Amino acid sequence: MSQVNPDHPLQIRLAMPRDVPVILELIRELAAFEKEPEAVRATVTDLHRDGFGPVPRFHVFLADWLGVSVGFALYCYNYSTWEGHHGIHLEDVYVRPEYRGRGIGRRLLSKVASVAVVEGCPRLEWNVLDWNNPAIDFYQGMGAQISPDWRIMRLTGEALCRLSERCD
Amino acid sequence: MSQVNPDHPLQIRLAMPRDVPVILELIRELAAFEKEPEAVRATVTDLHRDGFGPVPRFHVFLADWLGVSVGFALYCYNYSTWEGHHGIHLEDVYVRPEYRGRGIGRRLLSKVASVAVVEGCPRLEWNVLDWNNPAIDFYQGMGAQISPDWRIMRLTGEALCRLSERCD
Repeated sequence: MSQVNPDHPLQIRLAMPRDVPVILELIRELAAFEKEPEAVRATVTDLHRDGFGPVPRFHVFLADWLGVSVGFALYCYNYSTWEGHHGIHLEDVYVRPEYRGRGIGRRLLSKVASVAVVEGCPRLEWNVLDWNNPAIDFYQGMGAQISPDWRIMRLTGEALCRLSERCD
Repeated sequence: MSQVNPDHPLQIRLAMPRDVPVILELIRELAAFEKEPEAVRATVTDLHRDGFGPVPRFHVFLADWLGVSVGFALYCYNYSTWEGHHGIHLEDVYVRPEYRGRGIGRRLLSKVASVAVVEGCPRLEWNVLDWNNPAIDFYQGMGAQISPDWRIMRLTGEALCRLSERCD
């Protein structure tokens, strides 16, 4: 349990290894919110290895409200060959429904944006569902721009194996 | 100049620091092909630092045809909180127009897919322009799937600064 700040109920802080269980809880809640509760195969072991090993694969900010973690932002890095610099890819941002409307989401995003600025990253990027108009409005209100003509392609499972010529 | 393989004119190999100038040339050609020739601000210094430093920000496969680099695939890593594993994000794949139709693009993609399989990555992802039907058909022919309802959001420049609360 983190220290409660006497001046403000909300604290945004970098996650530590002991936070892995609550990060996984929040990941599962986000998946349930996206109507995919069964989609999360990640385990505590995975998140320990990938978030807190010698070369972290992701980074997490937690939002603590009166000492309880009620939201998170998880990001990793990408690369722009046009800019010649790494950028930030925000993978997840989530606030528990009962804690919304307090500016917690914006504070989480602001913290990730400050990492981008400090590291000289020219871009902060993330994906959004095209029917999620409240989210799009919120992001556009912060000055974010949607790329109308880019789509995401994904190769997984059997097709990935076939292309790799590494599987039977 | 790389060794010419006597058995086959095409060789796919990992790029080395000495390849940075040709990688930058190929990045510029790709930008021109995408009708954005002025968009590339990356320099040789940037690519050396970010691709070949102690913690590489990206990795490159080069396609050499009779010892000349005629195409490249540049990738970095992302993270799936559902899978609990890192994945591969393919940022650029490009073959010089006069060398197309020889299966070079597919061989480059196959090499990146083999990295995904060897590292246990469940996903290989990349972005495509929604009007680029030949590319979409090509990718779908390999078994890739398009995500119809996800869009990419991006925050840059002034708006990124404002959100970060780190700029004047």
